[in-house]
Amino acid sequence: MLNAIQETMLSPLDVFEDLESSVRSYIRSFPTVFTRARGSRMWDLQNRVYIDFFAGAGALNYGHNHPRMKEKLLDYVASDGIAHSLDMGTEAKARFLEQFQQVILEPRGLTYKVMFPGPTGTNAVESALKLARKATGRTTVVNFTNAFHGMTLGSLAVTGNKFKRGGAGVPLSNVVTMPYDGYFEGGLDSVDYLEQLLADGGSGISRPAAIILETVQGEGGVNVASAAWLRKVEKLCRRMGIVLIVDDIQVGCGRTGAFFSFEDAGLKPDIVCLSKSISGYGLPMALTLIKPELDVWDPGEHNGTFRGHNLAFVTATEALSFWRNDTLEQEIRLKGKRVRARLERWTVKYPGLKAKVRGRGLILGLVCGDPEKAKQISAAAFERGLIIETAGPDDEVVKLLPPLTIDPSTLDEGLQILEDSIEHVL
Amino acid sequence: MLNAIQETMLSPLDVFEDLESSVRSYIRSFPTVFTRARGSRMWDLQNRVYIDFFAGAGALNYGHNHPRMKEKLLDYVASDGIAHSLDMGTEAKARFLEQFQQVILEPRGLTYKVMFPGPTGTNAVESALKLARKATGRTTVVNFTNAFHGMTLGSLAVTGNKFKRGGAGVPLSNVVTMPYDGYFEGGLDSVDYLEQLLADGGSGISRPAAIILETVQGEGGVNVASAAWLRKVEKLCRRMGIVLIVDDIQVGCGRTGAFFSFEDAGLKPDIVCLSKSISGYGLPMALTLIKPELDVWDPGEHNGTFRGHNLAFVTATEALSFWRNDTLEQEIRLKGKRVRARLERWTVKYPGLKAKVRGRGLILGLVCGDPEKAKQISAAAFERGLIIETAGPDDEVVKLLPPLTIDPSTLDEGLQILEDSIEHVL
Amino acid sequence: MLNAIQETMLSPLDVFEDLESSVRSYIRSFPTVFTRARGSRMWDLQNRVYIDFFAGAGALNYGHNHPRMKEKLLDYVASDGIAHSLDMGTEAKARFLEQFQQVILEPRGLTYKVMFPGPTGTNAVESALKLARKATGRTTVVNFTNAFHGMTLGSLAVTGNKFKRGGAGVPLSNVVTMPYDGYFEGGLDSVDYLEQLLADGGSGISRPAAIILETVQGEGGVNVASAAWLRKVEKLCRRMGIVLIVDDIQVGCGRTGAFFSFEDAGLKPDIVCLSKSISGYGLPMALTLIKPELDVWDPGEHNGTFRGHNLAFVTATEALSFWRNDTLEQEIRLKGKRVRARLERWTVKYPGLKAKVRGRGLILGLVCGDPEKAKQISAAAFERGLIIETAGPDDEVVKLLPPLTIDPSTLDEGLQILEDSIEHVL
Amino acid sequence: MLNAIQETMLSPLDVFEDLESSVRSYIRSFPTVFTRARGSRMWDLQNRVYIDFFAGAGALNYGHNHPRMKEKLLDYVASDGIAHSLDMGTEAKARFLEQFQQVILEPRGLTYKVMFPGPTGTNAVESALKLARKATGRTTVVNFTNAFHGMTLGSLAVTGNKFKRGGAGVPLSNVVTMPYDGYFEGGLDSVDYLEQLLADGGSGISRPAAIILETVQGEGGVNVASAAWLRKVEKLCRRMGIVLIVDDIQVGCGRTGAFFSFEDAGLKPDIVCLSKSISGYGLPMALTLIKPELDVWDPGEHNGTFRGHNLAFVTATEALSFWRNDTLEQEIRLKGKRVRARLERWTVKYPGLKAKVRGRGLILGLVCGDPEKAKQISAAAFERGLIIETAGPDDEVVKLLPPLTIDPSTLDEGLQILEDSIEHVL
Repeated sequence: MLNAIQETMLSPLDVFEDLESSVRSYIRSFPTVFTRARGSRMWDLQNRVYIDFFAGAGALNYGHNHPRMKEKLLDYVASDGIAHSLDMGTEAKARFLEQFQQVILEPRGLTYKVMFPGPTGTNAVESALKLARKATGRTTVVNFTNAFHGMTLGSLAVTGNKFKRGGAGVPLSNVVTMPYDGYFEGGLDSVDYLEQLLADGGSGISRPAAIILETVQGEGGVNVASAAWLRKVEKLCRRMGIVLIVDDIQVGCGRTGAFFSFEDAGLKPDIVCLSKSISGYGLPMALTLIKPELDVWDPGEHNGTFRGHNLAFVTATEALSFWRNDTLEQEIRLKGKRVRARLERWTVKYPGLKAKVRGRGLILGLVCGDPEKAKQISAAAFERGLIIETAGPDDEVVKLLPPLTIDPSTLDEGLQILEDSIEHVL
Repeated sequence: MLNAIQETMLSPLDVFEDLESSVRSYIRSFPTVFTRARGSRMWDLQNRVYIDFFAGAGALNYGHNHPRMKEKLLDYVASDGIAHSLDMGTEAKARFLEQFQQVILEPRGLTYKVMFPGPTGTNAVESALKLARKATGRTTVVNFTNAFHGMTLGSLAVTGNKFKRGGAGVPLSNVVTMPYDGYFEGGLDSVDYLEQLLADGGSGISRPAAIILETVQGEGGVNVASAAWLRKVEKLCRRMGIVLIVDDIQVGCGRTGAFFSFEDAGLKPDIVCLSKSISGYGLPMALTLIKPELDVWDPGEHNGTFRGHNLAFVTATEALSFWRNDTLEQEIRLKGKRVRARLERWTVKYPGLKAKVRGRGLILGLVCGDPEKAKQISAAAFERGLIIETAGPDDEVVKLLPPLTIDPSTLDEGLQILEDSIEHVL
Repeated sequence: MLNAIQETMLSPLDVFEDLESSVRSYIRSFPTVFTRARGSRMWDLQNRVYIDFFAGAGALNYGHNHPRMKEKLLDYVASDGIAHSLDMGTEAKARFLEQFQQVILEPRGLTYKVMFPGPTGTNAVESALKLARKATGRTTVVNFTNAFHGMTLGSLAVTGNKFKRGGAGVPLSNVVTMPYDGYFEGGLDSVDYLEQLLADGGSGISRPAAIILETVQGEGGVNVASAAWLRKVEKLCRRMGIVLIVDDIQVGCGRTGAFFSFEDAGLKPDIVCLSKSISGYGLPMALTLIKPELDVWDPGEHNGTFRGHNLAFVTATEALSFWRNDTLEQEIRLKGKRVRARLERWTVKYPGLKAKVRGRGLILGLVCGDPEKAKQISAAAFERGLIIETAGPDDEVVKLLPPLTIDPSTLDEGLQILEDSIEHVL
Repeated sequence: MLNAIQETMLSPLDVFEDLESSVRSYIRSFPTVFTRARGSRMWDLQNRVYIDFFAGAGALNYGHNHPRMKEKLLDYVASDGIAHSLDMGTEAKARFLEQFQQVILEPRGLTYKVMFPGPTGTNAVESALKLARKATGRTTVVNFTNAFHGMTLGSLAVTGNKFKRGGAGVPLSNVVTMPYDGYFEGGLDSVDYLEQLLADGGSGISRPAAIILETVQGEGGVNVASAAWLRKVEKLCRRMGIVLIVDDIQVGCGRTGAFFSFEDAGLKPDIVCLSKSISGYGLPMALTLIKPELDVWDPGEHNGTFRGHNLAFVTATEALSFWRNDTLEQEIRLKGKRVRARLERWTVKYPGLKAKVRGRGLILGLVCGDPEKAKQISAAAFERGLIIETAGPDDEVVKLLPPLTIDPSTLDEGLQILEDSIEHVL
């Protein structure tokens, strides 16, 4: 393929400059052209290798092109397994449903009905919001500061980022934003606050259809809600008949240790949104999990062309085998502790960073006192062969999101590059 | 895989009944479990074969698992080509951009910038609406009766179907609906009507940011706009500085003959939405094409996890080779005429159907006087081994959407089943 | 009082220039300072006299300071009759309710409950929209092109004028605008059109809570709906369970002949809005009339400080005596015919005006081919001692709205000034 | 008049029961029919006398039918002073503008332009919101918990009461509600909180067009903002270019001591809304005061029929004479202290009330631990000849709102009745 590109007058990066819309973004942080990848490593056209601490923003929890999934995928494609099926029945879909039920839901005592809302996270969020509104007959949804739930109009309305919201071009409505756990620097128990508002006939906040939250806000800057706070939110929902939606798109599928990020706190959300790593291979796929009593959809009330992406079902089914025992889960927790410990040391070793550490499991943030530093660290890391992004409202957080399956030596190698980059920047 | 399913207590169809949300729909019209497919044929678990006149609702214009695309896909996966890349640069993406430019845009004198808005049609529509609103600073969008543009909140607001709209659970706003070409039975030139409204300071309709339309409304019942009407809409847009968005998701990629459905009318829309068949293989992928002067996005203002679905780029690039010459285009027009002629004969031969024919190229509708008849015909066809769906507000239209690449004998075989089904129903 | 003003440095008109907001409007068309008024005549500070063909935009149907009302008002004030009462019970209010029932409702077979929604027309409209939405549980309201219903956000949303709508500063929603009777120059039966939209599951227009209309659009340019069209709208409402709201604020209270403007067509609207001339004396007062089965308000669900403006109740009660027999009604119809005949003659006599005549009863419009002419005629008339305004989206209509009680010679005198003004302009 | 009513079969209260909408409210708390009033006393049909501690919900600060205003009103009406003038220039209006400028604005160093937005408070609020949005080009408005700003759709959107909001029948949007000073029982500096939200690019709260507030929330339960908090809000507005709107409809015109309720805190709001007592006589009238640099209205962009209610201008001008010196202001402060001291004593003397006292100037609330008690006290007071209402989200506050001009002995008499009622209830 390389040849074809080189025949043109354009250098490979110029292709994007010339032909792609100005909306492109990550290519600006990581200005190269990637060709192949395996596990935690990626290669570019110049055959340079990179360690990947970004993992497709959480879509590659099992690394790139996992060999067992790859094999299943090749077999399926080679045997003319049906690729596209709208939402008709297919063997690949049945198999996934069955395995998801046996490996994930049943052992956790969960009875969710599974909806395929379209292949991206925002499809899952939009369907969850629709269903919560339909089931309750209410319109307001409560979200939290620095939430990120997607770019289509319904999901964008529950997303906190002003720059993204501005893109809507119309006022976003039917949403009330509450402070996330620990948000207000002046101190505020945000669930008590919400509870007072809902109990007060004069607060202007009517009983919402749903509360939607991430247990760890990835895009929002690796903000971690405490288990106690999460349980308090759930109790409020139960007491007032509010649908609790957990958006586990970025931090589900094992990112925090357990398969669902809310397991540690013992939650049983009414609706769960999954996407990103659910296919295991980085293929577009999303799920909306719904408590049976809430599954009040009429047939076809929400639809979409790519609800039946069978290639994704095939790799997703294989990916579930990681969850047949607790090996991976233990590994994630262990690696998480190791990474965290190292980050904590840096906060002391490099006081010029004015840094603190946030995170849970293998999503960790190095919060820099000066946002510019965070950006410089990310750039320096890229030059040194490490892909790592920033997050937070001012991009002040260096966000570590390595594949969960990363081997210890690659993890260390990546961390060493990161430390070198910090030293370079300071 | 079959074994795994049969080992459980559930029959394969029971898996869906038990585990999937009640929102599932097409599986109700076509109650079987498909396993593999090739070209215009699909097989189910019982190894029954079906001719496919549905083609993934337009996502499989080149049929199932096209051998050349399949080969490229297998090679790419086998060589650990990067699968998931957010919107970073990859070779597969560069190659697609370049080919799309060379094969599609340049020969047609089009200078669009290409945006990857996320992998589904609704992502393309949402991004188009956002951009039109941003570029003009206006909020209203004009859509048309019986339009179908997607299920997320922004796209749903420009979709006509009441049942789908009802699913929103909130009022849908910032949209004004106009009658589509030929809509009002009492007669009405809908562009003249819109023009009068926009010229009138008392009409309550402010100048819109955009007009969004399908040149043929697929879901809406195979309603075909005339070239003259389309040109009149475009002229109105030019005169008033309104962004013209053509949603070519269902009827682009050759469905009406030319690659873009608007080529015959000579339109140059400001924004074009493509999805469904753009990957060629039924893989999730979508494009938003933007006139350079409208490409006012800030970097990352719209984003999403699956903008870099490289497996789709690989098959999409291969699919473009169909458009290096006009062989396929001629074939589509020819087949379209043949099918249409046969349908027209049926309207005479089976007066009990009270049918008329609508369509363009290879999207054709047999509009039944009695909606029940249309549903019965679809059901009878399925029993006889033909997958064919209904469309229109009352599901009164039997919609023919065979792969564009269907061979003549399979096409005839399918049409014969359809005629048999009609006779059975009557 | 004159002295007090003259003592300052400011000329009386300068007071407004210096101290009042730039939003002031009619004072710009009629740049003088009025002091007193009686019947159809007004005097200014320079003691110049003007004939009033504007009548408070319909708020002075019985002329200025009618002697019988004035007497009642003086007596009431002098005897310390309660002036302000929120919505507590007062004798003046009881008396009005009773008389309104006896003189207006009962003889017409109407059983409306009477609501005092606040003292202005827009309060009546807002309450009507709220109630229709509450009673039906639906959100959309259908209004018509060139409608005018008020300036507060709910009423503004059903008002057609783009300039006024623009003042909202936020998108106005939950409204669908249909063409008024005879609106589309290309011809269109707008009720048939609406009916098709409502019957069509793909039209994007859901069943509305209400249809709101004026039988004659005053501000919109003296557009007259035919009785047949009105009845067709009412039938559609009945058939589909839509609340029919007639805004009779400008053309009720006898302006078209009968007390209600919809009597001639034989309508029985579900809700009627009255204001402007209901107090008889130009005092702020408004009513919302509600069919008993629709009176589903909870106590205090809509409120306001000036629902109990007793001075207005006193003059309003006296004003009702005009409707104890049909003398005034006959007079209005007669005068209307006379004025119309004269206007019709002008369209022939002054072909340069390219004028046509529209109207019903004593609301009549001389529609000028060139909007500039209409404005010049109004200005020329003011210079000659006649107060007359323009209306319509481009102010192209010279609107005649004399007091209903104007004596024939003053009417002729006013018409003569108007004709002189036309001649002057031409 | 009494005769006319007695001739019918209906008892006077039955007239309301039979003919008025179920929305009527205060007549349910005070079930009698009033006939006349003077100063702080009202009489009913049975000639029973009541002391008025409600004062038209703040519309009768100078008591009922003040003799000097009454005389001016009678003279004006008798001399055929123009009653209704739309927004044309009249002598009465010029005189009011001039006096308002000389007596109120100039001495306070205020340079507001005066807008007559229509005769009720909600007109003033709607116009203020429109103007703030127009001037800033932004849509969001920040309001506070338990705010009350009116019943039309724009004002209702910034009103906190859920029951009233529910009446809208559509979602209310473009508003973000913040906790009022001292609102959250868990402690929260609400301006710091708002400031953090506005500084945070991820908070989901975009920079608002305006902040609207009452310095004392009357309907909301006599909640008093501290001067320090008010100044902090103002500073935030200045720093971020946010329009500060003070709704002084209920607590302006001297209710808290100074003419404007914000004078004590030293605020200079950008826009001020006045109504209720501005006419002095309880006649419908409202003002929107606008800093000159914000007066960006186009002529007629907001209008209305009753902007020129000249009878109200006449009494309003006379009412201004109360503010030529500080006699009334001193008196209000003195009476306020006396009433407050007595209420404070009751909180000790009647521990069963579990009461606390809130308020400023002559708006005072006795907050009862048990809302039922508050309602019983109001009812018991009515039986004993005292008109007094409850306020707050649960009607838990007995609200004292006597005329500012009440003579000391009547004030004491009223307080004694109130104490008797408390004793009766306990």
